[in-house]
Amino acid sequence: MEKRAQFLLALSAAAAAAFVAVVFVLRWVLHFREGLAWDGGPAEFNWHPVLIVIGFVVLQGIAIIVYRLPWTWQCSKLLMKFIHAGLNLLAFILAVISMVAVFDFHNFAKIPNMYSLHSWLGLAVVVLYGLQLVLGVGMYLIPVAPVSWKAAFMPLHVYSGLSLFITVIAVALMGITEKLIFGLSNPKYKDSPPEALFVNVLGVLLVVFGGLILWIATRTSWKRPSDQVLHALHTSAGGEDNTKVGPALSQLSEGNDAESSSDVRRRGNKLGDEAE
Amino acid sequence: MEKRAQFLLALSAAAAAAFVAVVFVLRWVLHFREGLAWDGGPAEFNWHPVLIVIGFVVLQGIAIIVYRLPWTWQCSKLLMKFIHAGLNLLAFILAVISMVAVFDFHNFAKIPNMYSLHSWLGLAVVVLYGLQLVLGVGMYLIPVAPVSWKAAFMPLHVYSGLSLFITVIAVALMGITEKLIFGLSNPKYKDSPPEALFVNVLGVLLVVFGGLILWIATRTSWKRPSDQVLHALHTSAGGEDNTKVGPALSQLSEGNDAESSSDVRRRGNKLGDEAE
Repeated sequence: MEKRAQFLLALSAAAAAAFVAVVFVLRWVLHFREGLAWDGGPAEFNWHPVLIVIGFVVLQGIAIIVYRLPWTWQCSKLLMKFIHAGLNLLAFILAVISMVAVFDFHNFAKIPNMYSLHSWLGLAVVVLYGLQLVLGVGMYLIPVAPVSWKAAFMPLHVYSGLSLFITVIAVALMGITEKLIFGLSNPKYKDSPPEALFVNVLGVLLVVFGGLILWIATRTSWKRPSDQVLHALHTSAGGEDNTKVGPALSQLSEGNDAESSSDVRRRGNKLGDEAE
Repeated sequence: MEKRAQFLLALSAAAAAAFVAVVFVLRWVLHFREGLAWDGGPAEFNWHPVLIVIGFVVLQGIAIIVYRLPWTWQCSKLLMKFIHAGLNLLAFILAVISMVAVFDFHNFAKIPNMYSLHSWLGLAVVVLYGLQLVLGVGMYLIPVAPVSWKAAFMPLHVYSGLSLFITVIAVALMGITEKLIFGLSNPKYKDSPPEALFVNVLGVLLVVFGGLILWIATRTSWKRPSDQVLHALHTSAGGEDNTKVGPALSQLSEGNDAESSSDVRRRGNKLGDEAE
């Protein structure tokens, strides 16, 4: 019970941070900036922070912890995988649209593209996120990969997912920094006008949300019960002998979205006919 | 053997990224910028990126994975804890000096302090890092805390340590962004002069280094053998019953620096008289 209460506390805090962050980014562009439009001007640029915060930060964060929600544990793992993949796909689409908005705005205003560290890391993270999505669907939703491949790939899938999420937030913080320096002229960023303080708080909210998602995603005891059993099974094998089970099976303990071996076997046998 | 080779590959890549990053930050301030001095001017500011990269990024990264180095496994856990704490203390001192350099430079040039998101998150991370250091020493080096406290606190210690490391890198990327925008005037950052490209690469190197340290720190099978046994012991207890062992013992699986229960017991009995 105490475990459940702690989980709900962390989840509520994450939800609150996400909600306030979305309100803040909307108020930023609608109240302090030029609003939203698709006209090549600053109002088109404004879709960039809005879609990044809603899609690439909040939706991706939800996608990461969707297996942790206790009221989903009665649903089939396959359904949850579709939800996980669907949320990530939606986040990816919103991220791509948000990038189109920036390129449009830059081209219209004759500002060079892809010169900043923000743009380098941002493009890299979108490309790698797309790759992660394709590999994830290919490995865990299309029933062709051998069970051993699925297990071996899982620690990398989890590590990449969390790393990309962290990097997205870091890139968003750089974007906020850029926009406040370029966007504020009189008074400037260094004069701390209300917009500067307001958007700094948005940055802090993104960090808090990211920290809470990481905490929730890395508590083994908050996993889906079937995944906890798998976790215990593989780690109790322990020591050097892990290599006999398969090089990466022993590392499933790092996996937060590991499918249970029974799930894997069932899907392997039924060839994807698992819509329970 | 394959496990050892994979570890050495990841470690070598991290060492190479760290080495090149240090070379890059030194070349940045010595070749592209005003060099290093302690005179209140831009050359004093330059200590900021240099000390952050060397101390807060590289030394902290080494401190995080110091328990993973196989050639230290014959050393006592206490000695390794002193090295872990010592490296973190050194990183903290260098971070504080690097902040003094910025405040000095700002005050001399009449630039406001603490207005940017970079400064907010940077100060927060230094304060929390200091707190982490004090709590870590108080809990694991001074032999007063009960064993149950040490175990209960370990998941938080590990999570905080990794989160602070990640945040330091994110704040460094924001700092690079700020400095390239403010420091480059003719040509500007957006005109991509050699310095801009060079320092963007420094940012990418910091991300690569961070990613490798995170990978090394979260591979359970690369832990000190005694900690692997503990990991297996606690996770095989599994399920809801973990709460009987102690609320956080079950979460030691997330711990990357967990001390083995025998280590804890020995230190508890010997009251710190463990200098083997």
